[in-house]
Amino acid sequence: MSSNSKLKICVVGLGSMGFGMAHSLLRGGFDVSGCDVNAEAVARFVAAGGRGAASPDDAARGADVLISVVVNERQTDEVLFGENGAAAQMAKGGTVLSSATMSPDAARRFSTRSEALGLGYIDAPISGGAVRAAAGELTIMASGAPAAFVHARPVLDCIAANVYELGDKAGTGAAFKIVNQLLAGAHIAAACEAITFAKAMDLDIAKVYEVITASAGNSWMFENRVPHILEGDYAPRSAVDIFTKDLGIVTDIGRGLKFPTPIASMALQMFVMTAAAGMGRDDDASVARMIAGLAGLELPGMARPTDAEI
Amino acid sequence: MSSNSKLKICVVGLGSMGFGMAHSLLRGGFDVSGCDVNAEAVARFVAAGGRGAASPDDAARGADVLISVVVNERQTDEVLFGENGAAAQMAKGGTVLSSATMSPDAARRFSTRSEALGLGYIDAPISGGAVRAAAGELTIMASGAPAAFVHARPVLDCIAANVYELGDKAGTGAAFKIVNQLLAGAHIAAACEAITFAKAMDLDIAKVYEVITASAGNSWMFENRVPHILEGDYAPRSAVDIFTKDLGIVTDIGRGLKFPTPIASMALQMFVMTAAAGMGRDDDASVARMIAGLAGLELPGMARPTDAEI
Repeated sequence: MSSNSKLKICVVGLGSMGFGMAHSLLRGGFDVSGCDVNAEAVARFVAAGGRGAASPDDAARGADVLISVVVNERQTDEVLFGENGAAAQMAKGGTVLSSATMSPDAARRFSTRSEALGLGYIDAPISGGAVRAAAGELTIMASGAPAAFVHARPVLDCIAANVYELGDKAGTGAAFKIVNQLLAGAHIAAACEAITFAKAMDLDIAKVYEVITASAGNSWMFENRVPHILEGDYAPRSAVDIFTKDLGIVTDIGRGLKFPTPIASMALQMFVMTAAAGMGRDDDASVARMIAGLAGLELPGMARPTDAEI
Repeated sequence: MSSNSKLKICVVGLGSMGFGMAHSLLRGGFDVSGCDVNAEAVARFVAAGGRGAASPDDAARGADVLISVVVNERQTDEVLFGENGAAAQMAKGGTVLSSATMSPDAARRFSTRSEALGLGYIDAPISGGAVRAAAGELTIMASGAPAAFVHARPVLDCIAANVYELGDKAGTGAAFKIVNQLLAGAHIAAACEAITFAKAMDLDIAKVYEVITASAGNSWMFENRVPHILEGDYAPRSAVDIFTKDLGIVTDIGRGLKFPTPIASMALQMFVMTAAAGMGRDDDASVARMIAGLAGLELPGMARPTDAEI
């Protein structure tokens, strides 16, 4: 067993991203506890060698580093400072790594509250998806006090291929992530609009994918998401509701700063329309199904809607 | 001199793309004539070894293959069929290669008119920019009759690294190109919105470029255009007015098909706003300056606007 076993780690949130991080840490020789509101997720973690717990406070008892990998600001608040919150149970001088996408202001508030308990705090949103989480190859857009980085370094090195150290204050990591989400959401909406537009012009959309991915119209998201549309496979790798949330954060920040975000706002509305049509928990490429449904187009895996369904 | 010298080629439009194509053909051993409304462009072509002409009909006399590399449908009409039009002067059985971005309907009309004169027609929009045009490494999204492809093959091979043969009728190439332009325009607008949003949040925008280009928010256009913003260099590699034109074609086609294009429409309005602010002939990354100007932000190369200027 490596020397990493001396650091006690707690992972709260064992979905595909959190489980991948926890599993990487187990492989790296750390002592890892974890919890999740979903009992099946905890069982899978226990089967992989982790110590399961029923609640954040139980999981975090004596932890040196806590990784919070939940969906949003509200859940992060609950995990850290709620009724069964983790922060108060951590080892003295421990470090919180918070990965949910949230506003820079929220990250600053959590940092201040953690520091009031004698804990370090790293604002540490992640990018890369489940496959790279499982491989210990995430990208982390991190900011926080230098001492917290020193303390959490073995953990960061174990879960990430790239750790961008973006500043010594919480909020900067969150801001970088939200810029990424503005682009990611806009590019998914544009990809879905473009591929259904191609279908409306009666083009071979598999050929469109081949040509565009080799042309100046390409984006990381076009290349990654359009295959879901070509295969008619809308099982959620990342859900529509993630972008109603994240683009909502973008437009909220914009309104607060009196900064216009026309593209992000239009993309947000397209995700909201897709969620309104009942696809909020489906893959975010479902924006294409929403448009196709409106326009009476048949994409792979879709039956052409009947008049009654429209 | 290679056997290519037997084919007589005419290039109409000697801007950066057309000059690059003409120069590639001269290097390839073809007999190349050319013309342009700009006398300096013709002089540069003559200095490179081409035969300059004063008008399309003069340039096209006896040409086996005519390449029209002008801006839009109207100019293409003028070049091919106008008062001094080229089509009627070409060698019997010649082939027209038309590269301007236009609607599929316009491409079909030009094909029909060319065929009525006994000419082949390849709907052949191009992608790749001036550097790849100069290197003979364009991407061509082409459609047309098989016989026209056989006839123009030595020319296509000389000017392009990738020739996508997308169908045997004019209009398909144009449709692929316009899907590419929808994405390209949306991605430029999103890139400009995102990088100014980052500036509004007081982030280091050079660092944002580094992080995003390694993340899921990346696009070909973000990677290519944001350096213009970082350097404050808005000399036109591709102008704002190109996208007021091309996204206008997208939204016109959409309206005709009763197909909604919300992202393209919003991006179009951002280019129109940028043109309205006097930057129509500047680099298309000027959308970022337009937003920064509205929001009172200072990007590289911009003086913070005074109250009087706002």
